[in-house]
Amino acid sequence: MRRVCDPRSVSRWDEEVDVLVVGLGAAGAAAALTAAGTGADTLVLERASGGGGTSAMSGGVIYLGGGTALQTACGFDDAPEEMFKYLMKSCGPSPDEEKIRLYCDGSVEHYEWLVAQGVPFKPTFYEGTSGEPPTDDGLVWSGSERAYPFCESAVPAPRGHVPRMEHQTGPLLMQKLVAAVESSAARIAVNHRCVALVQEADGRIVGALAESFGATRALRVRRGVILATGGFIHNEAMLEAHAPLVRQCTIRIGAEGDDGSGILLGMAAGGAALHMDAASISLPVTQPWGLKRGILVNAQGQRFINEDAYYGRLGEWALFRHGGRAWLVVDDAVFEKPEYPRELAAVGEDPGAIERELELPPGSLESTLGLYNRHAENGEDPVFHKAPEYLRPLVRPPFGAFDCTVESSIYAAFTLGGLHTDADGRVLDPDGQAIPGLFGAGRTTSGLSVGGYSSGLSLGDGTFFGRRAGRCAAAG
Amino acid sequence: MRRVCDPRSVSRWDEEVDVLVVGLGAAGAAAALTAAGTGADTLVLERASGGGGTSAMSGGVIYLGGGTALQTACGFDDAPEEMFKYLMKSCGPSPDEEKIRLYCDGSVEHYEWLVAQGVPFKPTFYEGTSGEPPTDDGLVWSGSERAYPFCESAVPAPRGHVPRMEHQTGPLLMQKLVAAVESSAARIAVNHRCVALVQEADGRIVGALAESFGATRALRVRRGVILATGGFIHNEAMLEAHAPLVRQCTIRIGAEGDDGSGILLGMAAGGAALHMDAASISLPVTQPWGLKRGILVNAQGQRFINEDAYYGRLGEWALFRHGGRAWLVVDDAVFEKPEYPRELAAVGEDPGAIERELELPPGSLESTLGLYNRHAENGEDPVFHKAPEYLRPLVRPPFGAFDCTVESSIYAAFTLGGLHTDADGRVLDPDGQAIPGLFGAGRTTSGLSVGGYSSGLSLGDGTFFGRRAGRCAAAG
Repeated sequence: MRRVCDPRSVSRWDEEVDVLVVGLGAAGAAAALTAAGTGADTLVLERASGGGGTSAMSGGVIYLGGGTALQTACGFDDAPEEMFKYLMKSCGPSPDEEKIRLYCDGSVEHYEWLVAQGVPFKPTFYEGTSGEPPTDDGLVWSGSERAYPFCESAVPAPRGHVPRMEHQTGPLLMQKLVAAVESSAARIAVNHRCVALVQEADGRIVGALAESFGATRALRVRRGVILATGGFIHNEAMLEAHAPLVRQCTIRIGAEGDDGSGILLGMAAGGAALHMDAASISLPVTQPWGLKRGILVNAQGQRFINEDAYYGRLGEWALFRHGGRAWLVVDDAVFEKPEYPRELAAVGEDPGAIERELELPPGSLESTLGLYNRHAENGEDPVFHKAPEYLRPLVRPPFGAFDCTVESSIYAAFTLGGLHTDADGRVLDPDGQAIPGLFGAGRTTSGLSVGGYSSGLSLGDGTFFGRRAGRCAAAG
Repeated sequence: MRRVCDPRSVSRWDEEVDVLVVGLGAAGAAAALTAAGTGADTLVLERASGGGGTSAMSGGVIYLGGGTALQTACGFDDAPEEMFKYLMKSCGPSPDEEKIRLYCDGSVEHYEWLVAQGVPFKPTFYEGTSGEPPTDDGLVWSGSERAYPFCESAVPAPRGHVPRMEHQTGPLLMQKLVAAVESSAARIAVNHRCVALVQEADGRIVGALAESFGATRALRVRRGVILATGGFIHNEAMLEAHAPLVRQCTIRIGAEGDDGSGILLGMAAGGAALHMDAASISLPVTQPWGLKRGILVNAQGQRFINEDAYYGRLGEWALFRHGGRAWLVVDDAVFEKPEYPRELAAVGEDPGAIERELELPPGSLESTLGLYNRHAENGEDPVFHKAPEYLRPLVRPPFGAFDCTVESSIYAAFTLGGLHTDADGRVLDPDGQAIPGLFGAGRTTSGLSVGGYSSGLSLGDGTFFGRRAGRCAAAG
């Protein structure tokens, strides 16, 4: 399969545009709206029969802050600097400081832009749990801001901005963004799949080939192609090569188009990929809040994280560092019905019975509980620094263990690695040089977060840097 | 920087060869010897003033087995199938079964080939420690074969084959291999750096540009270019992008040429890179053997691995899973002088004193030792399955903790990721299609092992698959 072709091999251009956007999810929509808004003749290709992509399957949470109108309306103070400190510490071992700075400084305005596109937010805060609220409230905690170690270095604020709809709000978000694109000067061609980029010998991208119902059309592009086709959670070979452990996850979050096609197009044109091993792994086992009073243990019967960390961080730790072997141990006082129904893998009158049922090393859970309880008596957790409100000795029988293993539990995964781009969405080669005329946005590119995920960062960076890519591509 | 150029931009070919090998380390030497041996006109470029590369800085251990003459002479039985089972389990989450099978089945013959090139091995076994022996003995344990979980699924055998020289034997290995290349029909051009590949529009590699003392020469290549320039441990930008935690390591194993140039050349020509996040991290803190009777604990005062695992596995676990926070705790009975001199980070009459000095959570080490000692009394370690010979309760004061933190200890690192190649060394694109005329070997390619490293696998796969690349490239 040749994903790049020479302009001399194109006998006839079927169409000519200024900016070509590939993929109509959140990132593509933001890019198209912005490019078209500058007056550039903009065409969006979408391989499905309608726009929406993975964004329309998502919870719809958008990670924004720094003092948005919504945060203020809900009574929360926030500052770009606090958001910056949180993201720099939580987004993985090698965070992109320039992008994070821009994202935090531009977040208030970006929220206004979303509102201006017609995305509705109800100015109310949801207290119930973190992540996606079951109500139509607009603001929610969607990260580890209040958990150790982040609470020590940045003032926490809830930053999950959620369109006004109950439960999963991705469909509403995309209904509004696609409608905005439809109302704009940008044109949309559905059932069109981009199969190749047209590249000059000097590296410049000057067009693309698109397939629709068996016919191939050659599109000449004057200013820039923006790849926004999503990640690669549905490409088995890419997962096996780059993120093999993710294949164990039972739930793979992604529309059918998340097969890595945009990443492969970009790489074929000389683009570098970054952090292809990274994935968001949500393990929502400590919802409602009270379940954070339990302890998560691994196959050695050891705790391995502060249980009040956000579920995007829990999942990554459980899968990548502990082989997907985890159980949430509670006592009778702490037990409550989990938000996502699940079986108890073990119930017993004492920790030893739980150990035996889970086949944990003899004495391991007893030892772990002994140390945990000793400190919890004093409202302390010097081992993992869980917040005091979740600390109470687990002593009242019966004890129980919720199954949090990768075989039986919800490990909801999508990929975070992708093309390396600069802050204006330019796709970079392995030397960090831009490939002229080629841009990327959303999960086709490496995310702001490549570790310990906070919900809303993909819709957030996809739309924010999608706009920047649209502006830069349109400038030619 | 353009690493790929069009043949039409080459006005004159300064030289024409069948096979061009880039880099004269172990992989390049093996490739050149094999290509030249088939009668192909072979040229080797080496950017330094002499051959050797990182291989000449290494310990010289070569991981071979399946019943080599050396293993047999030392009284050890081994079988390709047992070696295969060990490597499939120990080489990372997504091992390359085809390559591992070939490597194990061909290992006995490959040992004979090394001997035939003049590499001497003394048929004696070194018992003292694992890894690089201080003696001139030929065979040593160089992996986790006898440790859990590997000992449960494959019959262990020592497989570290070491050229006959005291201490680091890489210089001797490369002296012999370079001499063999010099005696062969292959030509060597030192002080020549490959700066670009010449690629036809259809993807075929047909030449290369080499720089020497300011002048650029165009080399036409009829059959194949073999990239064997080493890894990227000395490329800060690549480390930051792909393996940022490795930057914390104090010792970076690599000749100056390990700056990723071959990987970048291959990627520029459309090659895919694999496992760029992987690195070998040696943490040789449990030498001599007796120190394996101590326990390794992390910043939570928890054990995190069976301490009898090979130091290539210890280092990876300590750095990637525990943030480089580790200490080896011993009691007075187990204390002995470490092979690599190091300070005790803490000494105290009881575990609490050690906790305080290391600032571990109060009670954590005491709890860990309690559980460990309780089982060690019975010669058992149900938590991490350390072998019984290293199990004894740690109870006799004073207690001590050797500093194994990444700041203060030896974390010796080199990269394991690189170009994706098939079993004949063909460089593959992101779709798994070979780039015609382009080959790779050694650490320019993704290693057999990309996790829990056993010493000798890089010299092993570099020479073994270097030979295969040489043969396949010469076949045109």
